[in-house]
Amino acid sequence: MSALEAEMMEIGRRARAAAHALRLSSPEARTATIEAMAHRLRTQAGAIATINAGDVEAATRKLPNAQIDRLRFDTQGIEAVADGVAAIARQPDPVDAVLAEWTRPNGLRIERIRTPIGVIGMIFESRPNVAADAGALAIRSGNAVILRGGSESAATNAAIIETLRTALRERGLPEDAIQGVPTSDRAAVGMMLAGLDGAIDVIVPRGGKSLVARVQNEARVPVFAHLEGICHTYVHADADPAKAKAIAVNAKMRRVSVCGATETLLIDKAVADALLPPISIALHEAGCQLRGDGAAQAIIPMDAATEEDWSTEYLAPILSVRVVDGIAEAIAHIARYGSQHTEAIITENAAAAERFLREVDSAIVVHNASTQFADGGEFGFGGEIGIATGRLHARGPVGAEQLTTFKYVVRGDGQTRP
Amino acid sequence: MSALEAEMMEIGRRARAAAHALRLSSPEARTATIEAMAHRLRTQAGAIATINAGDVEAATRKLPNAQIDRLRFDTQGIEAVADGVAAIARQPDPVDAVLAEWTRPNGLRIERIRTPIGVIGMIFESRPNVAADAGALAIRSGNAVILRGGSESAATNAAIIETLRTALRERGLPEDAIQGVPTSDRAAVGMMLAGLDGAIDVIVPRGGKSLVARVQNEARVPVFAHLEGICHTYVHADADPAKAKAIAVNAKMRRVSVCGATETLLIDKAVADALLPPISIALHEAGCQLRGDGAAQAIIPMDAATEEDWSTEYLAPILSVRVVDGIAEAIAHIARYGSQHTEAIITENAAAAERFLREVDSAIVVHNASTQFADGGEFGFGGEIGIATGRLHARGPVGAEQLTTFKYVVRGDGQTRP
Repeated sequence: MSALEAEMMEIGRRARAAAHALRLSSPEARTATIEAMAHRLRTQAGAIATINAGDVEAATRKLPNAQIDRLRFDTQGIEAVADGVAAIARQPDPVDAVLAEWTRPNGLRIERIRTPIGVIGMIFESRPNVAADAGALAIRSGNAVILRGGSESAATNAAIIETLRTALRERGLPEDAIQGVPTSDRAAVGMMLAGLDGAIDVIVPRGGKSLVARVQNEARVPVFAHLEGICHTYVHADADPAKAKAIAVNAKMRRVSVCGATETLLIDKAVADALLPPISIALHEAGCQLRGDGAAQAIIPMDAATEEDWSTEYLAPILSVRVVDGIAEAIAHIARYGSQHTEAIITENAAAAERFLREVDSAIVVHNASTQFADGGEFGFGGEIGIATGRLHARGPVGAEQLTTFKYVVRGDGQTRP
Repeated sequence: MSALEAEMMEIGRRARAAAHALRLSSPEARTATIEAMAHRLRTQAGAIATINAGDVEAATRKLPNAQIDRLRFDTQGIEAVADGVAAIARQPDPVDAVLAEWTRPNGLRIERIRTPIGVIGMIFESRPNVAADAGALAIRSGNAVILRGGSESAATNAAIIETLRTALRERGLPEDAIQGVPTSDRAAVGMMLAGLDGAIDVIVPRGGKSLVARVQNEARVPVFAHLEGICHTYVHADADPAKAKAIAVNAKMRRVSVCGATETLLIDKAVADALLPPISIALHEAGCQLRGDGAAQAIIPMDAATEEDWSTEYLAPILSVRVVDGIAEAIAHIARYGSQHTEAIITENAAAAERFLREVDSAIVVHNASTQFADGGEFGFGGEIGIATGRLHARGPVGAEQLTTFKYVVRGDGQTRP
């Protein structure tokens, strides 16, 4: 066994022991600890920002500007993250909630009780806020977490993790509920994907498509993730023109780099002549480049979309546009090209809206609002550890509640089974 | 692509299309179809039993008696399965239930709605009732199912599947919601474990430990399963002697081959002298062989248990017995040797019971009742497709409700995200 392997197995054992203690801790202790995390992040903001400046400085020689921006974590950013952590402290504690209870004819009383999953393995790139969000959500849900961040932000992540661990110690919870993993050796990631000898219950990757694809392909434990968000906004024949324009621009352009950004605009043939020009102009004015099918190009000049465009997550100010012949064609397009992440319909027609919401098989379906609301904070979860497009256990934004499982508690008075 | 591979991929495509139709079918259509399944199983009972007699006849030359018994499916057995299917028809339909709903400060209304998982792959050995139970539960939960049974019961399974498909056709649901897979080529199992090119969402294995281990090791899709049920019954210091004796005998001996059978009896030092002799005698009279630790052997003669016994699932009339020094030692023994399936405490002491129920981290924890209640039917689920000891999505008996996932439905009136 290599030194790294021995170190990783020890991290796994410590996480498992901490998870055991967390599972049996009180909701009050968990709340107080998360509050202490928010407090310590605020009091340490200057120190963390200074350490982060070192990471940023070292990275400017190696990384493109977009990645540098993601790496940056100044006192303002740290304050915002502390606010998020404080919001998670105010969330209802999900552990030990009675999800269902019933009594059997033989008198057995059965309860389904929410319990923590155990140990979460988090593998993320660059953006340092992930460490604080994941740590707070793990404690809220009674889990331990093992964090493996990008090497570019190693010092920043280490400082954040140490801040969170101090809060755990301060409130009497085991500091090993939050552990960092050495970033110097990429082999650590492979060991996490193998589950650290049964110590990791679920892996959550956060980062680019290649990271998520690697995790999905190699992990021997369950994964909560989305490979990509090819999200659609469908402007129905009965769309309100002003809502359609405002939502289309926001869904694409508010932030182009998030997974809930709309990548394809579907517009109904019945209103394309009337609505596509003003929507296109508004998008163009916001800095968006359009790529349309033949019907869209016939209405207003834009680049041609190829077959590949329909299955492309641009994460850039580019939008593919297709004119569809009715709601069935819109739903069929989404079923064929979508990634089951988030899709919206814009319409004043209640029956059409209900049909879309029912028939589209995505984690999040939206009526008359922006797809960019696909976010744990916007859903009221206090935060999110990621967004999942898989169908099992967690789907959509993964907050504290989705980081729990359940067990059955059966109470009898001597029953034996006939 | 081999002919088998082409056939399997076609089965996957058909299942996916059927799942789409099932997801959008009405609860009434699903109920009527399951009722028709129960009816058709009854009217076809004679024909199926005759076909089964052929399977049994062919197997007698190849298989040991215990396996022949599992294979047998006479009219009485078929009637019992039809009763089970009818019970599943009476279960509340889980699909489209609103699991939670709330409104955000910006006016967005969010609902979490139960939806089917999609396509279930079922790999099972011999026991032919599994095909009918799995088919009925799949339809109840709006899913399609692909069934791969043992080759010994191929003709029986094919007859059952055809009966269920007839009921689907009769009620206007796609018959491909229930499909069988050729059993002549074992490569079909490997293809299912690879997910049939994304057509299978979850695999449920039912059978011996080697089958389950293979599925858990090789599957590239999520698995609902238990590798083994090393279940414990702990006789606490404040146990009622009569309950302790009755439950211990039932938990071990009612049926020794089920996963909820107790494999280890833990008995508290404080009452071992008084209670172990009568419990041992009752077990012995029921045909059970005991293997004890030194303390147990000092109280009443029995074979010696080795370290290996504590982690052995006998599935036989053998019970390991250990004297423990209090509840903490009992819980620690279970944490070390158990399989997180089902554990029971026998006590009249409410505080001890609550501690055990809370601290033991198993799918099912039981107070003053037999571990053999670990069963979907006994839980009131109408039936079960299996029992899961994994921590994600489904845990414990897997009924129709656990074969669903959820999606978020977001309703707005023009909201864009700031």
